[in-house]
Amino acid sequence: MKVAIQGERGAFSHEAARRMLGTDVTVLGKPSFDALFAAVADREAERGLVPIENSLAGSIHENYDRLQASPLHIVGETQLRIRHCLIARPGTTLESLRRVASHPVALAQCRRFFAERPDVEAVAAYDTAGSVLDLMKGAATYQGAIASALAAELYGGVVLREGLEDDPQNFTRFLALSLEPGPVEAATKTSIVFTLDNEPGALHNAMGAFASRGVDLAKIESRPLRGRPWEYAFYLDILGDPRGPAGAGLDALRAMAPYLRVLGSYPDGLKRASS
Amino acid sequence: MKVAIQGERGAFSHEAARRMLGTDVTVLGKPSFDALFAAVADREAERGLVPIENSLAGSIHENYDRLQASPLHIVGETQLRIRHCLIARPGTTLESLRRVASHPVALAQCRRFFAERPDVEAVAAYDTAGSVLDLMKGAATYQGAIASALAAELYGGVVLREGLEDDPQNFTRFLALSLEPGPVEAATKTSIVFTLDNEPGALHNAMGAFASRGVDLAKIESRPLRGRPWEYAFYLDILGDPRGPAGAGLDALRAMAPYLRVLGSYPDGLKRASS
Repeated sequence: MKVAIQGERGAFSHEAARRMLGTDVTVLGKPSFDALFAAVADREAERGLVPIENSLAGSIHENYDRLQASPLHIVGETQLRIRHCLIARPGTTLESLRRVASHPVALAQCRRFFAERPDVEAVAAYDTAGSVLDLMKGAATYQGAIASALAAELYGGVVLREGLEDDPQNFTRFLALSLEPGPVEAATKTSIVFTLDNEPGALHNAMGAFASRGVDLAKIESRPLRGRPWEYAFYLDILGDPRGPAGAGLDALRAMAPYLRVLGSYPDGLKRASS
Repeated sequence: MKVAIQGERGAFSHEAARRMLGTDVTVLGKPSFDALFAAVADREAERGLVPIENSLAGSIHENYDRLQASPLHIVGETQLRIRHCLIARPGTTLESLRRVASHPVALAQCRRFFAERPDVEAVAAYDTAGSVLDLMKGAATYQGAIASALAAELYGGVVLREGLEDDPQNFTRFLALSLEPGPVEAATKTSIVFTLDNEPGALHNAMGAFASRGVDLAKIESRPLRGRPWEYAFYLDILGDPRGPAGAGLDALRAMAPYLRVLGSYPDGLKRASS
């Protein structure tokens, strides 16, 4: 199966793709999220894997916007523990490192490592796995890179240290996208986007479509409507079999929402603390 | 009155400060939002002015996190139409420009200008007003900068063209922050942050505290809770006199929320399309 990701092979999206779709997936690295969405829409790849939310940084809002604008369906999700590794060329020692590169978000998640080593400079790069790739090519201005263990494996780097991240509760939620919807029989979660009339109680009534049926909501997110300042679209993740009360709630919401689109029904892939 | 902003004097925050607090304010430019919050907390400035939301790009989530973590109160808000100007040194013509600098967000909002002029290169700078300041100092590698009309006025630049932004519905909402809460008599809006128990219908019940009293909500926003993956804090803007039904709804919500903090009550400063 061909899977499109944003970034170089060995990115955390690549790890998520292997976990979700098997280690024999063929991963196509794309330079941007727009290119990733286009690759799936044009059938160059059968699936696209996009990060949608990080447990520390929050939602990746641009990808919510892309979901709404694209014809793709969400067919699955997974969560990946983001475990940053310090990677170098074989023979390099931890003590000899002076410059260490990675994507700025990864560098920001490893502040403690740099604080403890004032002689090591953090260098911003375009991609986590890409910084390992450039390092292994031998033309980099740095001696170490921070990326996934998979990136070290793919490009022949050595992991000098694992778990560089400041906070171990660092998970990213990834969505699997496809041109065709997934099988409804397997679905236990449904993601939708909708608008509401601008009147008191509108959001309460919308939530009531689910609460009155005992249906649980996993997440709500708001995004601005273009050209209508201070009005919003809402993204909602609804738990439960879409053929049961969750679907009935969705029908009730559809009757009150000026705009509503189902982004996909798929198996819930998140591990939550017990409620 | 001393007002702290993030960025150089002449930034859009400076324009917002003048609109809200008068043209005789003394503006202190701070290099980061953390420094801005600290300046108000340490009484170096009487007010801080922070952007919280843009009508195209959405919320500035890091500033929600900072509000929650800081002892400051929201005492007011304003919306500013973001009108980008092309600014140059006196004597420069539009036709002679080859490189034009600004903050990456401003450059992204002026894509059409650059698309229509393939011979003009967009150059990323640290700040909108800062790019004008550097241009006027004479040491810049570019001949034009994109920033507010105020930046041109303050630094002696010439506005070659106004309204460079692709979308005229480009507004930023700014909050005024203070160490002391504002007068409750003037307040028509209250911003809060709260958590909920992780159970079906919790958010519906929370909204019901206001819907059952006919109280309108202007905005809801969710942010991840650190260390509790896939659980969220909610930010809510409640409309109405906090001494009336809005306050009663707040008391009802307080009884069901494990955590709730009032960030401030203040006069509603947004212009909305009629509902």
